Amino acid sequence: MTALKLDGKALSQQIERDLTQRVSALVKTQQGRIPVLATILVGDDPSSAIYVRMKRNACQRVGMDSRPVVLPKETTTQQLLDEIDRLNADADVRGILLQHPVPSQIDERRCFDRIAIEKDVDGVTSHGFGLMALGERAFGSATPAGIMRLLHHYQIDVAGKSAVVVGRSPILGKPMAMMLSNANATVTICHSKTVDLPEVVRRADIVVGAVGKPEFIRADWIRDGAIVIDAGYHAGGIGDIELSGVISRALAYTPVPGGVGPMTIAALISHTVEATEASVKAS
Amino acid sequence: MTALKLDGKALSQQIERDLTQRVSALVKTQQGRIPVLATILVGDDPSSAIYVRMKRNACQRVGMDSRPVVLPKETTTQQLLDEIDRLNADADVRGILLQHPVPSQIDERRCFDRIAIEKDVDGVTSHGFGLMALGERAFGSATPAGIMRLLHHYQIDVAGKSAVVVGRSPILGKPMAMMLSNANATVTICHSKTVDLPEVVRRADIVVGAVGKPEFIRADWIRDGAIVIDAGYHAGGIGDIELSGVISRALAYTPVPGGVGPMTIAALISHTVEATEASVKAS
Repeated sequence: MTALKLDGKALSQQIERDLTQRVSALVKTQQGRIPVLATILVGDDPSSAIYVRMKRNACQRVGMDSRPVVLPKETTTQQLLDEIDRLNADADVRGILLQHPVPSQIDERRCFDRIAIEKDVDGVTSHGFGLMALGERAFGSATPAGIMRLLHHYQIDVAGKSAVVVGRSPILGKPMAMMLSNANATVTICHSKTVDLPEVVRRADIVVGAVGKPEFIRADWIRDGAIVIDAGYHAGGIGDIELSGVISRALAYTPVPGGVGPMTIAALISHTVEATEASVKAS
Repeated sequence: MTALKLDGKALSQQIERDLTQRVSALVKTQQGRIPVLATILVGDDPSSAIYVRMKRNACQRVGMDSRPVVLPKETTTQQLLDEIDRLNADADVRGILLQHPVPSQIDERRCFDRIAIEKDVDGVTSHGFGLMALGERAFGSATPAGIMRLLHHYQIDVAGKSAVVVGRSPILGKPMAMMLSNANATVTICHSKTVDLPEVVRRADIVVGAVGKPEFIRADWIRDGAIVIDAGYHAGGIGDIELSGVISRALAYTPVPGGVGPMTIAALISHTVEATEASVKAS
């Protein structure tokens, strides 16, 4: 048996073709006004700079503009809040991405929560999290939203399946757990205090690695026939899961790279287009 | 072995003694101004009327005022929103309770979410849910908040324990799951689509019945030595769990009545006092 590869790269390209048409229609409707995603990068973390560039490139591919806001690593919370306020007030800006993580002197949660909910296309606000978790309309956090879209595309119905999410961060593990629960999976949220994690993972029909440590989840923890979702990315092109020992036994898996990463960007760009469409429809 | 009874009635009385002193201090600080909890009851459901009366009585016992708002069962969403707006704007009103459930023609979620977050002492807004879930300051939903307080009082540390929450409602199952996860339990959220629920419950160190069906969770699903929390209440004084077959085998359990019910009210009243204290401190 060879597992089905959940090809996030291919799906993201297909999504971008659809988005290109929708952006083109929006530009016409708006007499040439092009939707803008503002990207905020604070400090000089090289990975963050690469992620922001990839997101800006995706905007360009679908015909959107991006507006880079680059702030020095000494930026204060107040300075970042002021910047977010300016972007919130700017009618051209349809979505705001604050690249995580910000330097440690900044209150990241406070800054995330300052983003206007209608521009929270990366799904980072606690208000948006609450709405999504309770089944209301909101842009979900981009990475788990991209994962749900990938599962949907491959017609993997999670209803009734046992899902184990390893990690409980505000923008990955927690929203992933709530999205899977809302889609009727039976979800277990694991973390650093979980006792006998290998045994808990062994019971899972669906395993999501969202822990942020290279190959932390070992292949022999994962049962034959599982659906394996790796949301990690680390130097050397490896994820949170020891995938090499799983590919021959799993039902399906996301490759690293080319699985969850492209879907995160596709979700962000999709949400920005949806935000623009919602705004145009309302006006 | 006889299980430890988690006596919510006794603890709620102890909490009320503390609150009485704090309310008295607040009234002095505010030159005689007494904190007010507004209670909104829509329609003529007899159980809801009883719950509201119990909450108003608790206000009285600790020296607070309550302001009953009683609306006919034909009330529209807009009429209820207008009423909430009035209470949000009223500086005397420190907390707002909208008794669940409201008649079916009303958009309950929209009305819950209209409550100003600083007055959301029952913990029903999606914004408050998001803040609580992400570990930020917010009044948690009253029933799960009361349960956490009961566990804390009996020095039951949930960290590392496996907890199974049966039910995923916005004001009970979901916030319970997030509070237990934030307290480092390994939480599984079960619901109507869960496959082999008895087996999942059998693995739990902590079982929370939050499903709203009389004795739905059978005694033989629960392992010896479990901590059994019954958040249900049904006619005849029974809960969501078949407690009679558990009391001799559990480590600890909440009686019905006298367990979770009084703690729900204690949490609501505590939150109202905290809201007043926060407001006084800020002014």
